Amino acid sequence: MKIVILGSGNIATHLGRAFKMAGQTVSQVWSRDITKANALADTLAAEAIDNMFDLDRSADLFIIAVNDEAIRKIALELKLSDQLLLHTSGSTGLSALEGASTKIGVFYPLQTFSKIKSIDLRQVPIIIEANMAEVLAIIRGIADRLSEKVIELNSEQRKTLHLGAVFACNFTNHLLALAQELLEEKGLDYELLKPLIQETLSKIEMNDPASVQTGPAIRKDQATIQSHLDLLKHNPDLSELYTKLSQSIVNLHKRSEG
Amino acid sequence: MKIVILGSGNIATHLGRAFKMAGQTVSQVWSRDITKANALADTLAAEAIDNMFDLDRSADLFIIAVNDEAIRKIALELKLSDQLLLHTSGSTGLSALEGASTKIGVFYPLQTFSKIKSIDLRQVPIIIEANMAEVLAIIRGIADRLSEKVIELNSEQRKTLHLGAVFACNFTNHLLALAQELLEEKGLDYELLKPLIQETLSKIEMNDPASVQTGPAIRKDQATIQSHLDLLKHNPDLSELYTKLSQSIVNLHKRSEG
Repeated sequence: MKIVILGSGNIATHLGRAFKMAGQTVSQVWSRDITKANALADTLAAEAIDNMFDLDRSADLFIIAVNDEAIRKIALELKLSDQLLLHTSGSTGLSALEGASTKIGVFYPLQTFSKIKSIDLRQVPIIIEANMAEVLAIIRGIADRLSEKVIELNSEQRKTLHLGAVFACNFTNHLLALAQELLEEKGLDYELLKPLIQETLSKIEMNDPASVQTGPAIRKDQATIQSHLDLLKHNPDLSELYTKLSQSIVNLHKRSEG
Repeated sequence: MKIVILGSGNIATHLGRAFKMAGQTVSQVWSRDITKANALADTLAAEAIDNMFDLDRSADLFIIAVNDEAIRKIALELKLSDQLLLHTSGSTGLSALEGASTKIGVFYPLQTFSKIKSIDLRQVPIIIEANMAEVLAIIRGIADRLSEKVIELNSEQRKTLHLGAVFACNFTNHLLALAQELLEEKGLDYELLKPLIQETLSKIEMNDPASVQTGPAIRKDQATIQSHLDLLKHNPDLSELYTKLSQSIVNLHKRSEG
């Protein structure tokens, strides 16, 4: 199987490596920035291109791994006819590829990728979708070689999953960043929080998070909440977040009881 | 050393076990609810009491592990003179014990405790404070037997640390609970997010969270943000949180650049 990767960012990089390790051939890496295309292509023994004229349209699979906003534009620039064309976005509908090929689909690895850290895709869920059963079967075949967890979802379900991932990953990471800022402003060592963070995560491996919620909000401990808000007086951003999150804890608890 | 524990909740339980394992004697467990006092006292080979008349004032250490609001009231009910009296609260000043004994201090284990799960206190930071150097030395001696990380902080610093813990532990747990609710509303399996959650945490073991922030907010990907807000239209609580957290990610990034 001959693969062309469109894009050179984190997802392009991790997918490229995974295809390579699964014994596939990545023949080309395209990026508007030839330096970036070169950097990734070199690690994959592929050709780097920055011009669609040089595209090898004899490849079996074209996989678009670029910013969501650019997906449709690039799909149409490819000028494919019936080659398999996939995008890798959690929040973009399959429809973004409509008209760009007769065989279109989605190949969304549900993970947070950074260039600094390699990831074993075998445990990463790959969410797939296609415009027809025959195409879906091909995509499933490709995904099965990379991951043990291949799941078909429609675009609407995939968007919800991606939204859940924003809460579970991006927003939790940000709360930890805020905690670090809070501590360091007062000369406290952020490392002190690490055992707590580990235990928080360890608890939810076996339990639903809502069932192990702790803290002043769930206890309705107004005195502590007020003393925390006093500490945040200088920072309206954090103080508002504190209030909203505390209220949200109470609300979720009511919903799950109701 | 003879210890009396006031309280029967999670912290009382975990500290009781830790003292016991460190070879100390817990002589009494007090709770307003004698059933609860009995449940904990039984596991510690201690006497359960629900009446301050029965308090063994010959003990060396009285440790208050009750709701923050009740600390001062119980401290005064003890009618001690010069026995060592500690509370275990992150967000309560040492001053809550003033006048209740001449030797007062704080013994705050920075961890999230639940009855279902036992915890090795050796890796848990214990934050200590006292009203005089002589008392601090005694508290440090006690804490050193339970944990490898004993740190002296004043009440203001401890409150900030506790606030950081609310962001890093309680609020992150809540975001995971919200993610689970979002997915399950649409019939999606929350387990799908687990590899992502693990990777999110694994990334920040070696990196500052702000430096590994990902997601639509940090990319300023307005199209994705808008599509997420559309998905949350039915839920003003979540939609508002989404907006605030996204804005806060942008704000923190600006602060750290500025």
